[in-house]
Amino acid sequence: MEQLKKYIEDNKDRFLEELFGLIRIPSISSLKEHKDDMQKAAEYWKDTILKAGADKAEILPTDGNPVVYGEKIIDETKPTVLVYAHYDVMPVDPIDLWNTKPFEPEIRDEKIYARGADDDKGQGFMHAKAFETLVKNDQLGVNVKFMIEGEEEIGSPNLGKFCEQNKDLLKSDIILVSDTGMMGEDTPTITTGLRGLAYMEVKVKGPNRDLHSGLFGGAVANPANVLANMIAKLEDDKNRITIPGFYDDVLEASEEERKEMAKAPFDLDNYKKELDLEEVDGEEGYSTIERTGIRPSLDVNGIWSGYIGEGAKTVLPAEANAKISMRLVPNQDHKKIARLFEDYFKSIAPKSVKVEVKELHGGQGYVAPTDTPAYQAASKAFADVYGKKAIPFRSGGSIPIISTFESILGTKSMLMGFGLESDAIHSPNENYPLKQFYNGIETITNFYRHYAEMNK
Amino acid sequence: MEQLKKYIEDNKDRFLEELFGLIRIPSISSLKEHKDDMQKAAEYWKDTILKAGADKAEILPTDGNPVVYGEKIIDETKPTVLVYAHYDVMPVDPIDLWNTKPFEPEIRDEKIYARGADDDKGQGFMHAKAFETLVKNDQLGVNVKFMIEGEEEIGSPNLGKFCEQNKDLLKSDIILVSDTGMMGEDTPTITTGLRGLAYMEVKVKGPNRDLHSGLFGGAVANPANVLANMIAKLEDDKNRITIPGFYDDVLEASEEERKEMAKAPFDLDNYKKELDLEEVDGEEGYSTIERTGIRPSLDVNGIWSGYIGEGAKTVLPAEANAKISMRLVPNQDHKKIARLFEDYFKSIAPKSVKVEVKELHGGQGYVAPTDTPAYQAASKAFADVYGKKAIPFRSGGSIPIISTFESILGTKSMLMGFGLESDAIHSPNENYPLKQFYNGIETITNFYRHYAEMNK
Repeated sequence: MEQLKKYIEDNKDRFLEELFGLIRIPSISSLKEHKDDMQKAAEYWKDTILKAGADKAEILPTDGNPVVYGEKIIDETKPTVLVYAHYDVMPVDPIDLWNTKPFEPEIRDEKIYARGADDDKGQGFMHAKAFETLVKNDQLGVNVKFMIEGEEEIGSPNLGKFCEQNKDLLKSDIILVSDTGMMGEDTPTITTGLRGLAYMEVKVKGPNRDLHSGLFGGAVANPANVLANMIAKLEDDKNRITIPGFYDDVLEASEEERKEMAKAPFDLDNYKKELDLEEVDGEEGYSTIERTGIRPSLDVNGIWSGYIGEGAKTVLPAEANAKISMRLVPNQDHKKIARLFEDYFKSIAPKSVKVEVKELHGGQGYVAPTDTPAYQAASKAFADVYGKKAIPFRSGGSIPIISTFESILGTKSMLMGFGLESDAIHSPNENYPLKQFYNGIETITNFYRHYAEMNK
Repeated sequence: MEQLKKYIEDNKDRFLEELFGLIRIPSISSLKEHKDDMQKAAEYWKDTILKAGADKAEILPTDGNPVVYGEKIIDETKPTVLVYAHYDVMPVDPIDLWNTKPFEPEIRDEKIYARGADDDKGQGFMHAKAFETLVKNDQLGVNVKFMIEGEEEIGSPNLGKFCEQNKDLLKSDIILVSDTGMMGEDTPTITTGLRGLAYMEVKVKGPNRDLHSGLFGGAVANPANVLANMIAKLEDDKNRITIPGFYDDVLEASEEERKEMAKAPFDLDNYKKELDLEEVDGEEGYSTIERTGIRPSLDVNGIWSGYIGEGAKTVLPAEANAKISMRLVPNQDHKKIARLFEDYFKSIAPKSVKVEVKELHGGQGYVAPTDTPAYQAASKAFADVYGKKAIPFRSGGSIPIISTFESILGTKSMLMGFGLESDAIHSPNENYPLKQFYNGIETITNFYRHYAEMNK
């Protein structure tokens, strides 16, 4: 254990420099102009895995961005861990809110500032370095496989098919993932649940061209006003979603479960202060933790129509658009919800407009068991480094592919995340504390040790 | 009369080429980067007026873009016409919807396609050419002054002060303006009313940064959802504006007035077909013409929040913005309405957000008399060219400065416009039929003739 810790300490600057190399590749999966960067990031990962000590690593094509696969098989009779991470990142706008360039990583206040610093280059890279640490010190006690994809931030549209086609290659006992967070920097957390997602884009079309709002205002339905009205109708005054059938498959948490959740260390005043909010807001009758952990939600992720430049333009816009996503709890089916949304959204449109609805992506929710060897190994590994027990946590986020792994590969995932709320993932000035990066490497290294021991 | 007509015919190609020179200057007043173009457009107008035969023309500074002033005083005892027009134009976005470049005028199907082709370079330029036609043929029977401003499209913020400071210089018997339209290409129209305008910009602020919609969705108020809700609350289900006190100063039209309005040549089926609409929509209990002519309205002119690029981004945006304008009828005060809007808008905001409201610009409505020498002269001039009587029309548009002229200079305006609905002013592919341009020059020339005769 001390030997491994020393190796990490001795190599920390190199680990960081190597991570920076990955971060500098602007691999934004949702923007076509970054197509070449996806390939570059995949190659960087391949080289990283090989240098760390894998028997082989290769870039496998999909219908979208390629998957990096690598492996080190020490003994066919030993258990196998499949590491999943993603090399793609979110877009960077609004770019003017960044204090430094998003793809030029910079250390300030002991934190790495960059797009992907946490999600998921920083967290993913910890696995490469934990693996390297074990291999270089001859302490790897299990087989390890890597599957690093490039489309997580756009909903992993091709990874399901990839898993179908490579079931044998991807066979493992547990899938290990660091793409979630901790409840606080001293509160190790194991994510035991994820929400599903149905992400829609809608367009409300009015007249066949932008009109002068003076000559036509009041006589022709304004698509921007109509869209606002339609969005307002998606939730009632108790912040419950009004789409008929939306809650049909939601499993209500028991009183006991809710009591258990209420024990989690959560400080509402601090939460509000940290976000600069006077009040939180959400579904009536539920606590903040419950609202993201066990309840579905509906958010406008983007809305645009008409003139959005400087000054005034008296236009009655021809159309209005919005991106609207719903977070779902386990047992809600994202395809069904997308259909219910579309039906309802079209039903509330006035005859004066035309409405288009499409699903941009979606995924099912997920629940993980806590009575498995992997959970025990993770729990011990966190205790080694943080000196305390990890808390099981139902996260509000979605990693749609996790439930796909379960349904296609038949394998559960172990969600050991080291992100912090203040990391601002998906936002300007995304960051990742150096402490989390190095603690993560050490914790993952210990996970392998404990997991191997349990399976001796 | 024939001599004037022949002069216009003989010089038509030159007139058009000179107009194109003005159009090619991208004088967008709402965008700072076009500051130099404003000066260029002003100089172009100054040269045009001088060459047309003015005694003098000069560029006078204001706190914003300059005003071009020119005059030809033939006899102090004769009446004076003050021509008002503007050399600034609207922005051109969405630029990708234009079939040709907005500042490279092109003739297609006997129409000039360009930003400003109608509003107000095409219409304004008719006055320069009508003036030239009279001067060059020694038939100018009244004094003429020109006041061409560069900030009409941003609400003429400095022209009121300019009028205050130049009352004597601008003294006239009637202000002549072509910045309105005709009800159809064979339906000469005199605009006898304009709506006022209160143009607001609002910002709804939530958390202090963009958040991950999975980790926070459902627990933190989403400013985009909140803004949609607030906009939805600005009108009721009968499309009546809900701002308390909003209708207090609206003068209801009498049954007789409404009957008179209903006689105007207006074909609803054609209106819907031309706009590609299945249904029109507006305040319950009023016809389409009434909805724009004698009733106020509220339109979202622009709305933006969150991720508006390609694909999906699961962001809970930190803020949401909208430009919202209200068209007002005469007797509604735009300053009072702006205050009522702000009070109401803030009052309906939940405590989970902060709201900012500002008025971008505003202006009062206007009503013109029909029993004046100017009206009679205009009526005859239209009849000369179109062979029929002009229809008095209450327009839904706003030219806020017209009511300012009345209050500061004490002078009424004569609104002789030649724009057509299909001109798509303020929109992509703005255009102006050559026929309107040449008929306009001829009609204006005749207006001067008749106006001079009446005042002999």
